[in-house]
Amino acid sequence: MPRIAILGTGLIGASIGLRLKATSTGDGLEVVGFDRYRDHAQGAERAKAVDSIVRDPTEAVRGAGLVILAAPILAIRELMEQIAHALEPGAVVTDTGSTKAEIMRWARELLPDTASFVGGHPMAGKTESGPGAAEATLFEHARWAIVPSPEAAEDAVDVVAGLAHMMGAQPLFMDAEEHDAYVAAISHLPLMAATALFRLTRDSEAWPELSLLAAGGFRDTTRLAGTDPAMAHDIAITNRTQIIHWLERYREALHRLQQQLADTEDEQELFRLLTKTNIEHGAFMSGAIGRKEVGEKHWESVPDSAMLDLLMGGTWAERARELSRRADERIAESERRARSGGRD
Amino acid sequence: MPRIAILGTGLIGASIGLRLKATSTGDGLEVVGFDRYRDHAQGAERAKAVDSIVRDPTEAVRGAGLVILAAPILAIRELMEQIAHALEPGAVVTDTGSTKAEIMRWARELLPDTASFVGGHPMAGKTESGPGAAEATLFEHARWAIVPSPEAAEDAVDVVAGLAHMMGAQPLFMDAEEHDAYVAAISHLPLMAATALFRLTRDSEAWPELSLLAAGGFRDTTRLAGTDPAMAHDIAITNRTQIIHWLERYREALHRLQQQLADTEDEQELFRLLTKTNIEHGAFMSGAIGRKEVGEKHWESVPDSAMLDLLMGGTWAERARELSRRADERIAESERRARSGGRD
Repeated sequence: MPRIAILGTGLIGASIGLRLKATSTGDGLEVVGFDRYRDHAQGAERAKAVDSIVRDPTEAVRGAGLVILAAPILAIRELMEQIAHALEPGAVVTDTGSTKAEIMRWARELLPDTASFVGGHPMAGKTESGPGAAEATLFEHARWAIVPSPEAAEDAVDVVAGLAHMMGAQPLFMDAEEHDAYVAAISHLPLMAATALFRLTRDSEAWPELSLLAAGGFRDTTRLAGTDPAMAHDIAITNRTQIIHWLERYREALHRLQQQLADTEDEQELFRLLTKTNIEHGAFMSGAIGRKEVGEKHWESVPDSAMLDLLMGGTWAERARELSRRADERIAESERRARSGGRD
Repeated sequence: MPRIAILGTGLIGASIGLRLKATSTGDGLEVVGFDRYRDHAQGAERAKAVDSIVRDPTEAVRGAGLVILAAPILAIRELMEQIAHALEPGAVVTDTGSTKAEIMRWARELLPDTASFVGGHPMAGKTESGPGAAEATLFEHARWAIVPSPEAAEDAVDVVAGLAHMMGAQPLFMDAEEHDAYVAAISHLPLMAATALFRLTRDSEAWPELSLLAAGGFRDTTRLAGTDPAMAHDIAITNRTQIIHWLERYREALHRLQQQLADTEDEQELFRLLTKTNIEHGAFMSGAIGRKEVGEKHWESVPDSAMLDLLMGGTWAERARELSRRADERIAESERRARSGGRD
């Protein structure tokens, strides 16, 4: 009977289990779970994300063809140490950690040559943690970064890509350094930005008033401050250099914006920047990938309707054109006012 | 027949209209709308947020006992200029602008003494704009800042507080300077933080890859980059000093976090900070206002279960205690490892 071991049955591990159970009925697949925290293990069993739970990681991996390490990053290292001697020859081991360079190093160091390690990182999640928040659909339409070790057998890579497909996700192959650089920008920097923003306001004398007035915008922007602290901490210390690089760049970007704000001479420049941002953000939220879709030129060029309609359907393109038209109108009007010396 | 004029029938104006129509059936209230953009005016009429639309703001305010200015901030100034001569004696005028000091100044300057101006700011909204996104429930459980001008008649203040109540919101009285300082921190700073974060990544060479990998966390953190550019621009230029002040402080907070990240000597300090942030963020998201609820002491003191349970019900308090316990465990373990020289 094919056996899959999930070590770490929190949100991610239990969601993988739920999907495995949902898509593989009747083929006799057995999913065994382990979690160092008993409530997580029991929660996963209660949610039927696993067939059984065991109290020892070595017990879980015995007889398992696929082992999924779904724990915070430093706990993944510990699990590797614990299971190394118990892995079946030919076993495929993968993980779901948010950084990859360190994990690939540990796998090379700790796992036996008889097993194949293929790193993985599903680009999905939510602020809630634990098996109680797990969903079989968590990874649908998400990207799943796959980082094969040079030593991994080719069919091991297929197994992990197949797992990603089974989860409803799109596998994307990259190397560990690429991965860590990219996620530093679009995942770890937002985490730090949200943490700093929440801490700054929370530590303010005015927090009682601020928390009373804070609405949806504040909640969205600081949502990642609710990230599980063990997960956040392990991300920070295993991708330190990249995160610091992006934090530097972010502070520079904020400084540029601050200077534009302070520049009372050219307020239209700020308005142009905000309009461009709004249009490009709209394209991104509508699912546009990359920047070809909105052209390399400035926002003024956006109403290239034929291209836009072709690339992203009517609604957003229509809005972008309308926004652009109003921006022109507003700028023309403010120029007219400036010429007339503010007299009208 | 009582008449209310809504000048500006975008998301906010149309949502107010919808709620007015929903709660005042049968008492003969007439809601008249005006918007300089014909699609917004027609959209509001189509959504039945207003009884009728007119093509001139002066026409809308004639006979109106209450006039609501629900436009971007600079457009509010223009509307004041246009309607000043046409206001009924005794009319109450309010607005929904995101900054208050400038608007109070304009009202004093432009509106006749026979009308009472009471500034307003509903602390609710969403990224989508326009009357098509309007909802009668948009303001439910939100705070509604109310800033009376010193000259306003007392019953005018009651009218505007009554409007907030009717919308399902909680009126909060404050002066314009207080208001602008608070919203700079919890509304305008998040807007700038999201804008800078989106621009930084969008302008990166790696944007094609970044946009492919970006998931929910990035979307949440940058959501405010989709704010209507006219609204964002007017906020920026009418609350410039306060926003710049908070941008300075935010860059400092990011710098502190960056230094903690760089400090490889005391990784537990970073972990403590992240745990404290997670617990306090959880309290805030569960509806705790101010900071009394989690004590003035550090996160170590959080599991004061009696107080927590009393103040915010079981679930969150339980989670905070569990998190705190795991943090203790993790720190103890890492200290044990450090003492044994990393040999186990």
